[in-house]
This record gives sequence, structure tokens and C-alpha cells, in this order.
Amino acid sequence: MTSGRKIMIVVMDGLGDRAVKSLGYRTPLQAANRPNLDWFAQNGASGCMDVIGPGIKPGSDTSHLAILGYDPEEVYTGRGPIEAAGVGLMGKQGDVAFRCNFATVNSSMDVLDRRAGRVRESDTSELIRALDGLEVNGFEAVVREGTEHRAVLLLHGEGLDPRVTDADPHEVAKVRRSEPLAPEARRTADAVNEFVRRSHQVLDAHPVNVRRRREGLPPANILLPRGGGRFPAITSFEERYGMTASCVAGVSLIRGICRICGLENINARGATGGVDTDMGSKALTALKELERKDLVLMNVKAADVVSHDGDLGRKLEVIERLDAMAGILRDGLPEGSVIAFCADHCTPVERMDHSGDPVPITIYSDDGLRDGTLSYDEVSCSRGSLGRIRGKDLMPILMDRADRSEKYGA
Amino acid sequence: MTSGRKIMIVVMDGLGDRAVKSLGYRTPLQAANRPNLDWFAQNGASGCMDVIGPGIKPGSDTSHLAILGYDPEEVYTGRGPIEAAGVGLMGKQGDVAFRCNFATVNSSMDVLDRRAGRVRESDTSELIRALDGLEVNGFEAVVREGTEHRAVLLLHGEGLDPRVTDADPHEVAKVRRSEPLAPEARRTADAVNEFVRRSHQVLDAHPVNVRRRREGLPPANILLPRGGGRFPAITSFEERYGMTASCVAGVSLIRGICRICGLENINARGATGGVDTDMGSKALTALKELERKDLVLMNVKAADVVSHDGDLGRKLEVIERLDAMAGILRDGLPEGSVIAFCADHCTPVERMDHSGDPVPITIYSDDGLRDGTLSYDEVSCSRGSLGRIRGKDLMPILMDRADRSEKYGA
Repeated sequence: MTSGRKIMIVVMDGLGDRAVKSLGYRTPLQAANRPNLDWFAQNGASGCMDVIGPGIKPGSDTSHLAILGYDPEEVYTGRGPIEAAGVGLMGKQGDVAFRCNFATVNSSMDVLDRRAGRVRESDTSELIRALDGLEVNGFEAVVREGTEHRAVLLLHGEGLDPRVTDADPHEVAKVRRSEPLAPEARRTADAVNEFVRRSHQVLDAHPVNVRRRREGLPPANILLPRGGGRFPAITSFEERYGMTASCVAGVSLIRGICRICGLENINARGATGGVDTDMGSKALTALKELERKDLVLMNVKAADVVSHDGDLGRKLEVIERLDAMAGILRDGLPEGSVIAFCADHCTPVERMDHSGDPVPITIYSDDGLRDGTLSYDEVSCSRGSLGRIRGKDLMPILMDRADRSEKYGA
Repeated sequence: MTSGRKIMIVVMDGLGDRAVKSLGYRTPLQAANRPNLDWFAQNGASGCMDVIGPGIKPGSDTSHLAILGYDPEEVYTGRGPIEAAGVGLMGKQGDVAFRCNFATVNSSMDVLDRRAGRVRESDTSELIRALDGLEVNGFEAVVREGTEHRAVLLLHGEGLDPRVTDADPHEVAKVRRSEPLAPEARRTADAVNEFVRRSHQVLDAHPVNVRRRREGLPPANILLPRGGGRFPAITSFEERYGMTASCVAGVSLIRGICRICGLENINARGATGGVDTDMGSKALTALKELERKDLVLMNVKAADVVSHDGDLGRKLEVIERLDAMAGILRDGLPEGSVIAFCADHCTPVERMDHSGDPVPITIYSDDGLRDGTLSYDEVSCSRGSLGRIRGKDLMPILMDRADRSEKYGA
């Protein structure tokens, strides 16, 4: 149904931060120009949000599950299935998925380069065609390329068990044999090892690698799986909330989370998942999608990327671009809709990694409480009328704001 | 025991609201004159309260259970037992109670009027005498009148099970057969159907209905049960908290909740449960009751009634009358007592139904923190020193404020 009030969730990945000495102990958000985000704070209700819980440092995967109202404890089974879903590969129950790297090995199975010289999709997509559909110890191996040197392996069949160790040594060392962590996973470990062996056999002599050697590039002559997980049993978003929903995100991991929860992934022209992404295009795409869906979640990764790089100056620029994007949303939001601006976690630019600090959140709807918070920043928002909430509270709050909640009682 | 500090909980039903455009995006509370409520906020500690949880829209029944410190998940078994308790009919464990409507049916069992022309107690109390005590398939049917066209049916005996569907079609349609939702409820469903059949047999020819037909009024010639539930196993309020307690409320549902929890219901002269209720009388009755009991809960329904009607102007008036009532309480509270002003849920006047927004709460005691909140309204209170609390936190907080809490530890 597309009647009823619409909901937009704008996740500005890694936006939150800590006090930076060179900014006079202000956060990048406090220091940047944010007129549009401030408008939403002044006309909306603000607070701070522990996406998982106080002091708990989320990954982008668990944080987005929480924001969508799923308990990561219950539905997070590992990175493999999420990466698979992110490249459009949805397994059936019982299937086990792994993240893989194309790597370079010598004849003694020493890993010389864990990323095969950062081999790219122009080569990997062809190499994958030689592996996809292989039969391995009675299981079917479905293989898809990801970005750059990455790929996804889905093992399909009866009796699979994800409790196996990684074949990827995570460093320059010998390829590891995958070992079962439980007796029931013996067959799966054997299949993983057989797949790795066959991948080397097939890839080493592949014309693409013959060409790469000739060009002085390291051959992508083995595929190393890690992070295996079973596809989780998840109640779809539409079934849980009675709303149709889409995701506008550039990053495969976020698209994978959303896909697994049953959201439709929408491509925005110029969305890269990186710093150079076209935020205006994403906003317009999201607004357009909101005409035909009840809820749209946007993720913009740029602030997280520059924070992982420790680049304060670029973080300030990115914030101002995010603010301009907020201006586009402000002009285009349908009447009666509910919009939330937040981050999925803080990524302090001086730490170059996520932190468990709460994130600033502002919720705006035309009839929502207006608490007069002057600025959209970590400190100002924390004094707002939402108080300190959890990620798992967000969907119930937004549903209720949009008059979509069921009454508990009479 | 009536030594020790007293506690008063003033539940202003449905008081909270959202931003109303015609009030310049203020809430009705923000816009109204509230000098006495403001006095409590300025001299007390304020916050906002999620009665059930963030974004969860409560009914008045589940909300009052939470406010009294009971977990609705554990003790809420449906509307039937609560309505029964509300009219003074307490079942034993195993009994199943239903809410009923007197209705008008034709000979084909089509429901022509679900309320028998809004038949009133002057007629229903007589009709009920013809039904009360009927023996139905080995069970005893106890029947009591409620307000207007309403009644309560209590089935008493061994082997009852509340998991049966309603006989009331909830619209103008044929009377439904009650069906069991579980095999164990087969006998109960049969008893409900037999009761419905007998009610029609008895009522259709009743002198009251002969007279009604003659006067051109629809006959109240059948009683339709719905919302069946078992009486819950509840630890009484006095046993849980070591305090004697009373409830001053006009509305049968609230009286029922309180009765089920073991509070004594006290009648206040002029208390109607409607907009025209005598709030001054209720306040004086509550203060008097506080001389002989440790805790009194007051519920004033008026704000909820006008909000369900969508009447903004009257909501502003009602708030000012509630404020005058707060003035009476301010003058009459015993020394050392603890008083809390809150709502059981918000009822936004433009939505004409409950919402899951948090409610404003102010707690005053002479030695309680004074956080200088200027006004008793949703936004101002949310900035107060109580922060954002849950309904289930209220009784522990009030008990502790009144120096009645047990130490946890050494």
C-alpha cells in the first residue's frame, strides 16, 4: 500500500565524532556549516542514539540491522550472507556463503599478495565465469564477483554447516586449510578446501592470468573464502511493519543488509559508496522512490570513508555536502512524511575507526514536537526532547510518528 | 499502615499531544494557561515517560497496568475481565469474562442495531435480571449491566478457555457463531453460542421489549459477547508494595484495572468519566482518601474524550480545568507526600486516537530535586532532570521518593 504517511531514514555513515583539539575541542559537526540540518533540528525533535547500546562500537552491518529494528543477536550470522545478498545473491535456507578474495599464490601455496595486486572487476568477472557452478563434493558452488578483488562463494546443498575456519590466512603466509569447528561441519570444511584447490587449478592456467603475468601483474590464481555464515531466517521488513521499503545506498555491505531484510535496492546515478558519490542524485532518487514505497532508507558512506582516512579537512567538506543534500530533501519531502537524520555510528577522525559514542538524531514531521534545538550536532542534539534512545527504538518511534503503529491494549 | 509518606498519582488521560499548526506548532498544553501545573514543574522534577516503550501506542488498560508497575505482557489477558472488575464483578481463577452489547436482531439473526438504539441502564438492568444466573451447558452465566448498552458476562465452572471468537459481528451483519481458536476451547465456544441463543429466547418476549416495540424503539433482544479473557493471576498491589491504595476514577475500564490489581475504587460525587466530570470533587475526594490510604491514583478522562472527538478548543478548556484541579491538590496535599502528574498516553487531537509519543511527567515532593523546569508541557518537561523514563519505572521512583523502597544490597 502506498497510502499513509511516508518515512525516510537518512543514515550519514560515520558522521559523529569527538572533540578535536585543532577545532577548539569542537566536533567536526559543531565546526561545519550546516544550515539545512540545523533547520530540521530547529523544527524537529532531537536526541542522541546508542545504535546498539551505550559504549558498544557497531559495525556498519550490525548497526543497520538495529536501525531497521532487527536484533543483531538473533539475525546476524556473519559477513558472508550479507556480502552475497549485497551482490544480489540470495541463498536459500541451509546455504552457506563466504566472502572471498582473489589472491596470488606460488606453487608452494604461499600467499604472495592477498589482493592479487588489487585486481579489478574487468578481470575478476571473467575469472569467475570459470568457477561459477562448479560441483564440489556434492555441493554446488555459486560464485559472483564483488568490488575490486572481492567475490562471494555460496555453497548450496544438504548438510552444510558454517562453523569452519577461514582459508584466507589474513596475512602473507601459507593458504590455510579450512577446519571444522564442530563435527557437523566436517563436510563443509572439506568442500571449502576442495573448492580452493580447484580454484587454483582452474585459475592458474586461465588466459586472463597468462595475460596478467605477461603484463607483469600478479596472477589472480586462487580464491580464498572466509567469514562463512548461514543465510539467516528473517521476517521480511514488509511482513513486520506492513510497509513497502527501498534502500538507496552505494555500498555493497549496506545493500546486502537491506536485501536480506527484504528491502529493494535502488541504484542512484553517480552513487559510488565513496567520497566522490553524487549526494544530490541519491537524494532525488530517494525522493522519487518515496512516491511508490512507504519507507526509504538512504545511506551515504562518505563521512565514514574520510574519517577512516583521518582526514579532518575533508570531513568538514563532506558534512557541508551532506547539509546541501539535506536541503534537497527539505524541498522535496512529501506532505505528512516523517524524516530522521542520524548516523549508524560515530567514526572519530582522530581514531580512524568506529566508536561506541551515541550518534546525533533529529526527527522531523509537520506535526511532530518542535523542541527548538538550535543545531544538528552531537552536543546540541543530546539536549533535545527525544532524550537518549536506542537503535531498536527508532522504527517503533518512526512508525508511531507516521500513525502506523498498532495499539497495545484497548 | 498509614504512617509513612503518602503518594498521589494524577493521571490526566490523553493529555499529551503533538504540534498543532493552528497553535503555531505548539501543543495544546504549550498553548493553554497552566499556572498550577507550572508551579509543580518549577518546584519539582520533570521528564518524559514512555508508558509502555518508545513508539508503543498504549490502550488505557495496558497503560494503567504499567503505571501501577505491572507488566502488561504478564497480566493483560483481554478486555473482558477488566470490564467485569470495573462493574464490581471479580471472577475466580478459571472464570472467563466477556464484554457484551445489547443488540437488536431480526428473526434471521441479522444484527439490525449493535447497540439496540443506545438502550440505557433503565431498561438493561431489568433485562439482565432475566439472564443473570442462567445455567448454560453446565456453566453458570453471571451477567451484570455496564454503562448504556453494555454488559458483562462471566462464565463460571471447570474447563473454561477464553480462546474463542466473538459472537458480535462488529458491524451490521449476521450474528456470528463463536468458534474455538484451540481444541481446549470447544466447550466454551459452545457455551457462548448457547448463551446467545438463550438470551434471544428470553429477551425477545420480555415485557421491556414489548414496551420498547410499542414505543417505536428497537428491542434489545440479544446479548452479544466479545473480547473474552481469563481473570489474570495478579499479586495484589498491597502485597507488592506494602501500601494500601485507592483509585478515584469515573471510567469503568480504569476502575476495572485498579480493582484487578487490588486497589479500592472510591466514588467521587459528580465524577462522570466524561468531559463534564466534577474535577474539584475528584481532587477533594482523593485528598480525603489519602488520609486513610498510603497511595491514591486519580484518573481524569476528560482530555482523552475531547481529543477522540478532535475538539481542540475544548481540549484547551479541559487543560485549564485540570490546572485548577492541580491548584486544589497543591493546597491540600499532606506534608511530605509525593505527587506525580502525568498522562497514560498522548491523544493527539488532530489524530483523534492515542499515539506512542512519550507523556510529560512532573514529580513533586518537598525534598525532591528542583530542576527549574518553567512549564508543564511536553517539550519543557523533556528537558527536565528525570530524563526519559518508562512507565514501569514510575512506582519504584515514587516509592523511593517516599522513602518506602527496600535496599538492594548492603
